[in-house]
Amino acid sequence: MQAYKQLEERFGQIQALKQVSSLIDWDKSVMMPEKGGFQRARQMEVLNVKIHEMQTDPAVGDWLSAVNRNDLTAWEQANVRIIEWLYAHATAVPAQLVARKMNQQTKTEMIWRKARVESDFKLVRDELERLLDIVREFASAKATKLNKPLYDALFDNYSPGMTSAEVDIIFDDIGAFIPGFLNDVMAKQKPALPLKGPFPVETQKKLCLQIAQFLGMEPQWSRLDASAHPFSMGIGDDVRITTRFNEKDFTNAMQAVAHEVGHGLYDRYTPREWHSQPVGASLHMGLAIHESQSLSLDQQLARSREYWEFMAPHVQRAFGKEGAPELSAENLYRHVTTVSRGFIRVEADEVAYPAHVIMRYRLEKRMVESKLEVKDLPDAWNAEFEKLIGVEPPNDRLGCLQDIHWYMGAFGYFPTYALGAFLAAQYVDKIKRDTPDYNDQMRAGKFSTLTSWLTGNVQMKGCLYTPMELVERATGQKMSTSYFKKHLTERYLS
Amino acid sequence: MQAYKQLEERFGQIQALKQVSSLIDWDKSVMMPEKGGFQRARQMEVLNVKIHEMQTDPAVGDWLSAVNRNDLTAWEQANVRIIEWLYAHATAVPAQLVARKMNQQTKTEMIWRKARVESDFKLVRDELERLLDIVREFASAKATKLNKPLYDALFDNYSPGMTSAEVDIIFDDIGAFIPGFLNDVMAKQKPALPLKGPFPVETQKKLCLQIAQFLGMEPQWSRLDASAHPFSMGIGDDVRITTRFNEKDFTNAMQAVAHEVGHGLYDRYTPREWHSQPVGASLHMGLAIHESQSLSLDQQLARSREYWEFMAPHVQRAFGKEGAPELSAENLYRHVTTVSRGFIRVEADEVAYPAHVIMRYRLEKRMVESKLEVKDLPDAWNAEFEKLIGVEPPNDRLGCLQDIHWYMGAFGYFPTYALGAFLAAQYVDKIKRDTPDYNDQMRAGKFSTLTSWLTGNVQMKGCLYTPMELVERATGQKMSTSYFKKHLTERYLS
Repeated sequence: MQAYKQLEERFGQIQALKQVSSLIDWDKSVMMPEKGGFQRARQMEVLNVKIHEMQTDPAVGDWLSAVNRNDLTAWEQANVRIIEWLYAHATAVPAQLVARKMNQQTKTEMIWRKARVESDFKLVRDELERLLDIVREFASAKATKLNKPLYDALFDNYSPGMTSAEVDIIFDDIGAFIPGFLNDVMAKQKPALPLKGPFPVETQKKLCLQIAQFLGMEPQWSRLDASAHPFSMGIGDDVRITTRFNEKDFTNAMQAVAHEVGHGLYDRYTPREWHSQPVGASLHMGLAIHESQSLSLDQQLARSREYWEFMAPHVQRAFGKEGAPELSAENLYRHVTTVSRGFIRVEADEVAYPAHVIMRYRLEKRMVESKLEVKDLPDAWNAEFEKLIGVEPPNDRLGCLQDIHWYMGAFGYFPTYALGAFLAAQYVDKIKRDTPDYNDQMRAGKFSTLTSWLTGNVQMKGCLYTPMELVERATGQKMSTSYFKKHLTERYLS
Repeated sequence: MQAYKQLEERFGQIQALKQVSSLIDWDKSVMMPEKGGFQRARQMEVLNVKIHEMQTDPAVGDWLSAVNRNDLTAWEQANVRIIEWLYAHATAVPAQLVARKMNQQTKTEMIWRKARVESDFKLVRDELERLLDIVREFASAKATKLNKPLYDALFDNYSPGMTSAEVDIIFDDIGAFIPGFLNDVMAKQKPALPLKGPFPVETQKKLCLQIAQFLGMEPQWSRLDASAHPFSMGIGDDVRITTRFNEKDFTNAMQAVAHEVGHGLYDRYTPREWHSQPVGASLHMGLAIHESQSLSLDQQLARSREYWEFMAPHVQRAFGKEGAPELSAENLYRHVTTVSRGFIRVEADEVAYPAHVIMRYRLEKRMVESKLEVKDLPDAWNAEFEKLIGVEPPNDRLGCLQDIHWYMGAFGYFPTYALGAFLAAQYVDKIKRDTPDYNDQMRAGKFSTLTSWLTGNVQMKGCLYTPMELVERATGQKMSTSYFKKHLTERYLS
């Protein structure tokens, strides 16, 4: 058989098993009875070891060497590029080191849960030190094999082809912009009327299903459930998103739905004929592009005045509170655009959010490069936080213990959260320039003007282009922070 | 590594992947969005091909030859016996024939769905002929390898170690008993007062959850959902059962819950330290023993007068109909013990049910042995039905098109449905002899007297014994039909 066909066959199987892995992971968070965790961990382990074996098989390397790219279509060439990237990452680290990392992650994460509850960093310090040692070893193995700087070798796994040098430029620019901007917004903003809950979960759930449909998620190929942390899972024509319900504030669930629908549409609208190959899996475009889809909906659209002008009557009707002043479009808009100096990233507003990310990026890069040690992390955290957000966290639970990422060994992940926000602003700026009555369309609930642009320019392209090529083709411009700053200025200061 | 340890490692992985396969199959029936089927079929295929490869690896044969059974504990020896049985079945048929069978099954099942709706056997006749040809070839390959008669080679897959010669004796006995008994019951029985629906699905669901708990299924390790056909799935501490709701008759859902809880308890209470090995998977005891667990609850318990004396007040309270005469214990008992000459197996009562199974067994055995051809099936069906149940089906939808089994290539499965009923009667007879106030305990809702006997004598034994050894150890007697006949006589004619 031709080398390319061999690769397609193998990675078609791998793709199917990865879908199974996503599915049982979804099940774990949404459906599994409480005591099922022990067996589930074992199932995940066996399945993922099997996938790893199939991916690191030396035959894959042979096929990659033998494949003649000139004989291939553009999609097939892109598929080979992704397979090469997957193979390089999977084979860069000895199996024994992968196992040690997994093992240390599990331990560290377990103790982190306790440390966070008790707000006591010392409890987890030693385990995190051990984990960071392994992460450094891991980064070093990858750096050698992939011929990249230490941090970049990790970051590349989450954002293929991007470098920390590029991130530095972008984050330095935004990092310099935010503190002053935050001051200006906070001096100017007027408080929203408080929402008057409780808002029954069942009603919120119905409302969220309606919103998901308004945003283009059709029930024939999707589900909406509840889980402790909102997330999405998409495998072809089977897209599942979750949200969480707060009885005091229904906008939490609504924003999470807009966010996760963005991810879900991406999974749904990569080209169907490539769903079973790596080039058709949105994940392989990296998390910055994925996040640009969710934030186009969650931030660009669902925090806009026009969106709330359309939504407010639906909200009022759902809760049987027609005409309630706190549920007016203006007040709801004000509610979801309130800016604050909060300590928690996942509760942060659109203005402060990038600052939360930037400080984590700076810290984790220094940790990986052995310029910051675990024992000094809490102080370094608090100093960075004060510099960017202007206040100091009162304890570690509201500081360096708040996110799971480092404690589960995920270094190099954070930057993607902010890059997605900048890209979303760049897309919407482009769409608005091409669609003069864009705001009227949003006000009328014609959200497909936004979503079908995303589908046509991003989602349907699968992994045909590299992330930065894709952005340039879609918007006519290289990635830039100027659109995000313009967007914030228009929404928050005009 | 020692040969036994190699087998444990390999079959521990296989066991985990089979659990994953069960889980995504459950998801398909209960959670998957409508359009997810295409990708799911592919995921199932890849996963099961992988399992098949791991199971038929020649190394497994080498380890089995090398293992020294004298060094092993009784549980380890039983584990080897099950592995040997799995290996023998998996390697008995060439991969190419397995693939041809799978392919023809899919085609036949698809056309069967249409044929059933249109009640037109001719539509599916040719495809079923092709499938039967392949099934005969398949049976012949297995018969040679396993050194068993043709039909037994298929039956052994569903009921390890049992022979059709044994089944013949049992079914001839019960087949001779039922027609006259059915006449006697129908001449004597008094009709129940009709139930006055509709009974809201939400209320039924709450009631069913309560009943599942009464029967010993705890929410920490279980789920109850709805699906088109009730079924159960159990992987260690993660047991999931389904039921279906009929707004006119809540007893349908209640009986299905009792039935599926029986299966679920079996999965839950095989010994935890063996959950990850074949010897700890209840499925490997065969479906007759599995069905004996579900029918101990569904038939023996949940069609008894005492059960309904306990349940009636809960039912009345659930539907807000305290004191309603049609919801009295006596009337509900009468309702679930009404005997009829219905055409459909899955709707059959406890008396007619074995007759439905016996006729299918006789027909499928003749088909496998080339003594009955597909073109003659409808007539043969109607003649057998008339002989055992006393009426002739008016059309094929109510006749030989009603069950999916043959159309999906499952020959040798049916007998287990009836064998389970006979065993359940044998268990409960034993328990009643050992527990003089058994009926009072059931009346008081102390169902654990029944379920803990099942746990201690059947479920906790895993696959330590062969099915027939297990029955003899548990009840002190070889498997016998006399208990079932005694049970029916006491319940329906005394």
